[in-house]
Formats: sequence, structure tokens, C-alpha cells
Amino acid sequence: MSYRSEALEYARQNTTRYENELREFCSIPSVSTLPDHAKYLHVAAEWLLHRLRQTGVNRVSILPTSGHPIVFAETELLDHKPTLLVYGHYDVQPTDPLGEWESPPFEPQVRGECLYARGAADMKAQIVAFLAALDAIHHTQSSFPLNLKFLFEGEEEIGSPSLPNFVDKNSELLQCDAVLNCDGGIHAADIPSITYGLRGLAYFELEVQGPRSDLHSGVFGGAVENPVQVLCRLLANMIDADGHITLPGFYESVTPLTDEERSELARVPLSEEDWVRLTGVPCSWGEKEYSLVERTGARPSLDINGIYGGFTGSGSKTVLPARAMAKFSFRLVPEQRGELVETQLRTYLNAHVPKTVRWELRALNFATPVVVQRHSPFVRAAANALEAVFGKPPLFKRDGGTIPVIGVLKEKLGVDTVMLGFELPDAGFHAPNEHMHLPTFHRGIETYIQFLENWK
Amino acid sequence: MSYRSEALEYARQNTTRYENELREFCSIPSVSTLPDHAKYLHVAAEWLLHRLRQTGVNRVSILPTSGHPIVFAETELLDHKPTLLVYGHYDVQPTDPLGEWESPPFEPQVRGECLYARGAADMKAQIVAFLAALDAIHHTQSSFPLNLKFLFEGEEEIGSPSLPNFVDKNSELLQCDAVLNCDGGIHAADIPSITYGLRGLAYFELEVQGPRSDLHSGVFGGAVENPVQVLCRLLANMIDADGHITLPGFYESVTPLTDEERSELARVPLSEEDWVRLTGVPCSWGEKEYSLVERTGARPSLDINGIYGGFTGSGSKTVLPARAMAKFSFRLVPEQRGELVETQLRTYLNAHVPKTVRWELRALNFATPVVVQRHSPFVRAAANALEAVFGKPPLFKRDGGTIPVIGVLKEKLGVDTVMLGFELPDAGFHAPNEHMHLPTFHRGIETYIQFLENWK
Repeated sequence: MSYRSEALEYARQNTTRYENELREFCSIPSVSTLPDHAKYLHVAAEWLLHRLRQTGVNRVSILPTSGHPIVFAETELLDHKPTLLVYGHYDVQPTDPLGEWESPPFEPQVRGECLYARGAADMKAQIVAFLAALDAIHHTQSSFPLNLKFLFEGEEEIGSPSLPNFVDKNSELLQCDAVLNCDGGIHAADIPSITYGLRGLAYFELEVQGPRSDLHSGVFGGAVENPVQVLCRLLANMIDADGHITLPGFYESVTPLTDEERSELARVPLSEEDWVRLTGVPCSWGEKEYSLVERTGARPSLDINGIYGGFTGSGSKTVLPARAMAKFSFRLVPEQRGELVETQLRTYLNAHVPKTVRWELRALNFATPVVVQRHSPFVRAAANALEAVFGKPPLFKRDGGTIPVIGVLKEKLGVDTVMLGFELPDAGFHAPNEHMHLPTFHRGIETYIQFLENWK
Repeated sequence: MSYRSEALEYARQNTTRYENELREFCSIPSVSTLPDHAKYLHVAAEWLLHRLRQTGVNRVSILPTSGHPIVFAETELLDHKPTLLVYGHYDVQPTDPLGEWESPPFEPQVRGECLYARGAADMKAQIVAFLAALDAIHHTQSSFPLNLKFLFEGEEEIGSPSLPNFVDKNSELLQCDAVLNCDGGIHAADIPSITYGLRGLAYFELEVQGPRSDLHSGVFGGAVENPVQVLCRLLANMIDADGHITLPGFYESVTPLTDEERSELARVPLSEEDWVRLTGVPCSWGEKEYSLVERTGARPSLDINGIYGGFTGSGSKTVLPARAMAKFSFRLVPEQRGELVETQLRTYLNAHVPKTVRWELRALNFATPVVVQRHSPFVRAAANALEAVFGKPPLFKRDGGTIPVIGVLKEKLGVDTVMLGFELPDAGFHAPNEHMHLPTFHRGIETYIQFLENWK
């Protein structure tokens, strides 16, 4: 029996323990955007520290940032082995709307084949799976096949504000040959895939102020322009009904898809029926000249993430609200940049906000879109590992989400990333009833074992 | 010294007591729209009962409805005197946004010449002023100059849902020669006015549902239409930038203003500067072919009263919300009707809601617009009383607010209403920091005394 099989065998004997670790990690409410949850971020970081030590990673540390701490760890570094930097984040999204959860988000519950908890899929399962892979190797081998470094941040869900500065100051410490980013997914439980492109982000908050304070809509309605109405008009006119964004110059920096890439993306199976089943919408939507896979992975988009104004309680209040606020964000594709989108947005607002109101635009968050190379040894190792575990070669695809760290690490350390994660598209990430498919979690552990042992 | 002077003299000696009564009444948080405040509505009703008794009104009762109770009272009814039904409401609007109040809304505070509290202007000051006028007459005369009946409801701010049925069932009890409605205002502290027209109301709630639950905007953005975006577009296109409502047929039932009425309304002084100072907006807005007075009093309008969808906390959450909701209302003018507007609105929505979402429209509240006659003895008495106290004859104007009871009483009892109230336009009603101008409160007491004693 080869040593590979020993580690796999060990992992198969410990599935219950690994699931329990996942439950334990998921029960920590490490919501990074809520100031009063900061203590739980520390609890999660300590949990990681402890768990890394248990899996044979002997140098572990919790490093402060101006926000939530970063867990950094490394194995013994041997000159003849290449070094892989493993990236993950231990923070999670907020849980609202809380009322829509079928079980409390931080009391992990198994229903069917899935574990339900906030952060289960995005991305605590990946971290636990990778550590389980290490654990299995640690208990069956004398050493790890690679030098490993670990960078686990606690601010991914709020745009990784501390990370660029941290990487700048610690470039020596972080030096590596490649990055393994575990914060990603596969196409379906039986369709492995490797993501090679991710969209960027430009996230804004717009506030429109009309009258000094709320007014009686009967007394003033008809001669005071309603700031909610103005906000709705501005948002409505920023995009047409087919999903084309109207900001001046918005598409000028969008790199067109090549025919080769379009035909490769066309291999990713995603039908209208799949889409309706996955999302619960009556029908899909968007740029008719692009496929669903292209629309969500390789084309920019605009979404209103939240809106608020006036009276929203039960019953009727005849108020003309003083102000209204919306949060909205653009997903960007190469070579778009958040700074340029902000300029285009300000041009649009300067031209279209009426004189009847005052407005303020705040840029909350930018991330650069990335496309990584598809043919490195590590990508090959990832593809081979997926094929060995799932029994078929992975699809190569571009995803719609944003992982700012990939751009940061490429820029600051000059290294490429391979993405290998196991979230499923219907896992409910950033939404109520987030869940991890447990059979896929275990396949993830086996894939990480195969990847580590077959990287060459 | 005539008996009129005695009552006025008595009122002038009791200003502090009457102000204390106003404070006491305003400290009761009788917010009718909040289910958990129902007990405070009862407290307010009891307060009225007690106070009516003190002012010499001997038959008083609290009558249940399916909602908040109605306080009904009457003086001894003498055949040779005409009967006046005095209408008021003891409920108030909600207090949100609470953070914008400079003092707690139910802890009345005097700052400058004003008393700040929710309900101070709308309309507890009017009730206290009328009861003070009675009190002054009661303590100086042997009897009231008119037969008086009192109808104080606790549901005006939620559209008077119980009132039509109550009036139907108690038409005998409520029989009268005219109604005095104290729920109104004057144009300015030094410009008395009588309102003879009020706009109606059609209040709706629209919910748009896209995906089954919140989605990750990166993964799904671009191929799932955003329900907040759809809602914004629907609301934005319901009215143009100049205030014209686009619902099919909306203006067909609007009675055009006559030249005579337009020239009368043109006497009401209201400049652009007044408007900006009053509201705090950078500039006025609305149908350019109508004056500010006409836009707010004699033309229909549309306002979004509240909107909500997605993530509205601090920071950024990259969510594609599952649903969005807006409350909005039309102000109606003769001969528009809420039922017809609902039909027009459904026609609009059927034509414009995209197939990508599901929607539900709920009609929350309808009120019929009214114009009352300007030349009855009671209106003349009100005009004379205002002139005696303010030193100048009142303007006749149409107001933008809605007082459903006027239409109900006209329809059910066949009687006309005279409106005589003392709210000022900048009193902050339905808004934070609502306040009553105390010198106007005292002039109100004197005007009610003069009105009661000069009705002939």
C-alpha cells in the first residue's frame, strides 16, 4: 500500500471527527462586518491556531492588524521542497434576514446530506477539509511533501481592508512559489471544476437628502421632490432592462471574450431549467447576447445590495421621507478598475441628480478582477487530484464572485494562485440557510490529500 | 363687561394650566399604528373622558370599536339650540426616525415659543384648546351657547378604519346641524386661514420577489434580475421628473380648477423662499403649470412613503436580495377615487412588471377627497372669530392632507364640516421634532371661545 493510500485510508476512518470539527468551527459567529462580534473573530483565530498545531504545523502565530487578526503559520521549510502558501478566511457574512433561517445560523445542524450554518460553505468547510488532509498526512507520513505556509485572514467578507498592507510588510515571510486559494467552489457535486477567473468589485453607498426632516406627504407632496423617488430613478436608469449598464464609458475597459474562451465556457453545463431550479426565479435575465455562464462569470454586472428610506413598519404612515440610501455594487471583469467606475458613476450622478436634492456617494470597497494562468504544475496537480477523486477531468471556468486576495498576492508577491475549493453553487452563501454538502466536503479532503501528494 | 369677555378673561388667567394640560396629554404615547401601544390609546381616551367631565360635559362614554375606542360625549341637548358635532382624534403618528428627535417625543419640552412632542400639533393642541375654551365658558356662563356633541377617534392616523361603521350604527346619536373639525391648521402664525378642501388618499404596498432567497451577488449577478432594481424601475416610471403621474387614465377624473378658484388660491402667500425655508430643500419641485399652493392642495401627487430591501446595515454585504417592498401613496383631488386608482395601478403593473419576478400589491388605505361649502353660518362664525382674534380676515385655502372623516360624515349624516384648527405648516407633523407654537395655541383657545359665542 503506497503512502498515499494510507493518508486517504486514515481520512476515511476519521470522517465523523472531521465533521465534528466543521460543526465546532461553524458554531463560532465570526461575522467580520459587525463591530460587536470582534471577540468571536479572535475565538475563530484561536481555534485555527490550535487546530494547525494538532495537524503538525509547528510554527503558528496570530498577528494583529488594524482590523481582525491574521493567522499565519508554516511548516519546517526545507530548501529542496517548493513552498505553497495556503490562503483562507475564517470570517463569515452577516446572518440577516435571520427570520428566514430554518435553524439558528451558528448552531450547525445536519439535514439530509448537508450541514447548515453560516460560513459552512463560505468557507469554513474548505479550511477544515484542508486541515483534515494535513491531519491525515501528518498521522501517516514522516513529513509533508511540500513546504507549507498558511495565511488565514478575518476580513475577507468586508473586502480584506488590512490585507494589502499586511502583505506589503510581510513579503519576506509570505514568500512562496504558488498560492493555493481554498475559497472557491466546484460546478456541481458530480462535476468538478477549476476556476481560473474571478470578477472584481466596486461597492458604493449613495445617500439622497431632500427636505431637512421627514414631512407630511399630504401637506408637502407635489411640491417637494421625494428623495426615495429620486434614488429609485437614479438606480433604475443606471442599467437597462436587459442588463446593460449605462454609465458613460463603462464597457470601454471590458476585455472582449475570445472565441476560444467562449467555446471553453460553453462546455460548462448550465441550462435555463438548472438556473430556475437553483435560484427559484420565474426565469433568467440579463444580456441576451451572452450565455448564463458568461453573464455571471465573464461579464460585468450591477446589483442593488440594499435600499432603505422612510417608513417600513407595518401599516401606513403618510410621510415624505427626508432621505434615502442605497448600497449597490458592480462586478468587474478584466481590465475594469473600481477607481474608474467611481469616476464614471460620479459623471452619471452629476448629470442626472436633480437640483431638488443633495447627495453623497461613498465608495466602500474595490477589488480587481483576475484571470490566472491555467497551465502551471499546481493547476495540473489540482486537476489531476479532482479527476482521481471525482472520476472525471474538471471543467475550467470563470466565476462571478470576488476574491480580492488573489489580485493582492499577484501584485505584491508576484505569484499565481490555484483555486481549489468545494462550495456548491446552491450552498446559500451570503444568504439564509447556507449549507455544506457533506459528501462533497469529504471528497474535498481526499482531493486536498491527492493534490498535496501529487503536486509534481 | 360682556359674558364673552369674561370667558376670554378666564382663559387668559389660565394659560399655564392649559399648557400643563397639553403637556399631560402629549405625554401619552397614543401611536395608533403600533399594536403594542393599544393600552396607551385607552389611557388617552380615559384622559379625554375625565377632561370632558371637568369642563361641564356631563354625558361621556368610551365606545368600543373593532380597533381603538371612540370617545363620545354630549352636553344637555336643548331644542332651541342648534347642535354642533366636534370631531378630533387622540391618536398620533409613530415617532421614527427616533434618533432625529432633539427631545424624547413623549416627554414634552418647551423650547423657545414651542412645545415639542409627538402629537403636539397633530392634533392634541387643538383638542386641549377646544376643551380649554369650553372650560372658560363653563366657569363663566350658566350654559353652553350650542348643543355640543363630541366624537374623538383613536384611528385617524391609520385611516379611520372603524369610523364609517361606527357612524353608520350611531347615526341617531351623532345627528347634528354641522361638524366642527379641529384637525387643521392656519397658514401662518399671523395669517389666519380656513381650509375648505382636502385631498384624498390611496395608499399601497408593493412587494417584488425575485429569487427564492437572498443570493450572492457575485455568483448570480448578471443573470438574475434584482428585485430591488425592478421595484425602483416600477416606482421611477410611475411619475415623471416634473411630477406628472403616468398611470393610464389617472388625470381623467381630476376636476380642473376654475379661474375663480385659481385666483382665490393665488391670494395665499407662499413664495419659493418660504418653501425652501419651510422644508429645507434646495428648491421646490412639481408641476410647473401650477403654483406651489395648487400643487399641494388642489392637484394629485404621488409619494414613496417607505422602501426596503436587502442589506442596510453598516459596511458592505454582497447580496442579491430575494425581495423588496415599497409603500407609496397618491393624494387625490375631486373627483378621483382610490378604487379607480388601484385599477389604474394594476393596469400599469400588469404592463410593466417583468417576467423575472413575482409581485403582490396591497391597498392599505383609501380616503375620498372633499371640498366643503364656504358660506354656511358656521363658516362665517369661524371666519369672524379668526378675524376678531388675529386682527385680519382669514384666507380660504385647500390643503393637501387627508381627513377621511369629513367625507364619511358628509356621506353618512348629510352634514357639512367647518375646519378650524391651529397647526402651523412647519410644525413637523408626521416628522421628528413635531411642535406646537404656544402663542398660536392660546389664540386658538380664544378663537374657539369667540366661535362658540358668535356662531349665529
